[in-house]
Amino acid sequence: MTLVESIISGNRLALSRLLTQIENDTAEGRAAMSELFPFTGRAHLIGITGAPGTGKSSLVNQLARYYRHPVNGETAKRVAVVAVDPSSPFSGGAILGDRIRMRDLAGDPGVYIRSMATRGSLGGLARTTSGLVQAFDAAGFEIILVETVGAGQAEVDIARLAQTTIVVDAPGLGDEIQAIKAGILEIADILVINKADRPGVENTERALRGMLELAHPGSRVFRKHALTSQLAPEAAPSNAVWIPPIQRTVATEGTGVSEVAQLITRHQSYLLQTGDWSRREQSRLEIELENMLEEELVNRWRTQVAESYYKTVLQALLERRISPYKAVEDLLKGDSDL
Amino acid sequence: MTLVESIISGNRLALSRLLTQIENDTAEGRAAMSELFPFTGRAHLIGITGAPGTGKSSLVNQLARYYRHPVNGETAKRVAVVAVDPSSPFSGGAILGDRIRMRDLAGDPGVYIRSMATRGSLGGLARTTSGLVQAFDAAGFEIILVETVGAGQAEVDIARLAQTTIVVDAPGLGDEIQAIKAGILEIADILVINKADRPGVENTERALRGMLELAHPGSRVFRKHALTSQLAPEAAPSNAVWIPPIQRTVATEGTGVSEVAQLITRHQSYLLQTGDWSRREQSRLEIELENMLEEELVNRWRTQVAESYYKTVLQALLERRISPYKAVEDLLKGDSDL
Repeated sequence: MTLVESIISGNRLALSRLLTQIENDTAEGRAAMSELFPFTGRAHLIGITGAPGTGKSSLVNQLARYYRHPVNGETAKRVAVVAVDPSSPFSGGAILGDRIRMRDLAGDPGVYIRSMATRGSLGGLARTTSGLVQAFDAAGFEIILVETVGAGQAEVDIARLAQTTIVVDAPGLGDEIQAIKAGILEIADILVINKADRPGVENTERALRGMLELAHPGSRVFRKHALTSQLAPEAAPSNAVWIPPIQRTVATEGTGVSEVAQLITRHQSYLLQTGDWSRREQSRLEIELENMLEEELVNRWRTQVAESYYKTVLQALLERRISPYKAVEDLLKGDSDL
Repeated sequence: MTLVESIISGNRLALSRLLTQIENDTAEGRAAMSELFPFTGRAHLIGITGAPGTGKSSLVNQLARYYRHPVNGETAKRVAVVAVDPSSPFSGGAILGDRIRMRDLAGDPGVYIRSMATRGSLGGLARTTSGLVQAFDAAGFEIILVETVGAGQAEVDIARLAQTTIVVDAPGLGDEIQAIKAGILEIADILVINKADRPGVENTERALRGMLELAHPGSRVFRKHALTSQLAPEAAPSNAVWIPPIQRTVATEGTGVSEVAQLITRHQSYLLQTGDWSRREQSRLEIELENMLEEELVNRWRTQVAESYYKTVLQALLERRISPYKAVEDLLKGDSDL
């Protein structure tokens, strides 16, 4: 059996190997991903983001448990978790270790948790996350929870690639946290106020409602890219509008978690009815394509330009004889001349 | 007088106009920056970053005041502040407004404060910050303080482009904040424990010392880029090693601020002695050049590829007939065939 066949048939070890290859961006990994691509597009991607201190990890943990043991007669689903953590240059890995954090899910073959350190470039991080999600999708995980810190633009960009994005808030966070929060509210399909047993929960909810009214719900816009605007206007949006609901939870005790799961299901139905499901899928693939194109263009250019010429131009820049704009112009001209 | 001449002669209105042009990435702005570039390279760039809630803004405020009214017989310096704030999709601008935050510096012609909302792409954010810094540099600001939230990779990348990077910590932050902190400690030249009048300051300092001992101080490494490694080994590093000092402050009261300023001066002397000053400057320019190259390569490719061909390939991708890797291959091949 090939690696690809093993993964589709549910072999966990094969999946582990592929995930590592995706993280290291190997040729073998790329080849496998190409073969697996036709088997993707079935999972429900759920992005979970929020300021530090809101308890995102606990909520992710509880949601994963819920999907494994749902109430209301639903069938259990296989769940993958991709946690994008801030990197530690000391440990060289994710700080909030999977094993510790998700201990109560350990041993369940229907759950797979992968933590990513945010090492390396931002483009790399987005590409790797996307690769991991595709691998889990092809391997038959029906729910993929992507957790990001939600404090930087990159993390937000990753979260918004999901079909459903949950923004987690909590009462009593400081001013700077509030500022961060405002920046991510726009992308929320569902708002969760976690730690809802804390004082100030009423104020938090009131503030969120105020911000929601200010915004125009339903008009979720992906970051625009030059070439993407022409596509996919064929499915006219239905008149239905999704107003992001607000749900209180105390994730550490499991309170409100099944309600969040119901909201996720409701959001999925909404997306399918309005055609937004496939539109979001398309946006995601388009953005991924453009990111990969950018990377490859730069790689190809680098193999073409003469190193001696690059050094000459760089030296002129460092001596401030030419400006960065002029240096770029020269290098791209030199490229075709050489 | 041209725009460039006005800026060099200290005209504040002309500078404002240029800053706006840089933010909007206009052709006029680019032309002016090219002309101004030979006048840059004199300012001391100081990056100030740290987790949310550490009180970075207060420290920046106090440092700016210090440089305007220094003690110990030093001469006053002109100070520019570039604050990279999380964006608000509602206000469309920076949340912590300059005018409110920096009220006590208002009216001083030797101070210029610019807040940036982190709108748009990450590459754009880094490029804009770099442009603003160059404009202030050319306009004769001797000290440029760049404040970033320090919670995402992009923000950290911006902070580390400074000659001196200050990482701000505070006692009593939550676990998730601690994780973020670890990710930015590596880039610190100076560590500040702000809010040092709070309980737990001893623990915070002990933890920081522990992490510093784990790391190898002095071995500050820029993110590696393929083409940059050959350059600048000529100035062999001196044997001197910079061990990031830890300074306690209570920024809201001004306590410890002049000590931070002394450490910044000491760090500058160290950089100049060891040749690191010009090495960091070179790294910064190299990274900037590479970022601009990437952007321009993509722009040029986009004008070359036939839109109809792009749409055909994209459609095949959306129908999952070809993988993203294959799509990139086809598009880059198509590019040369057409």
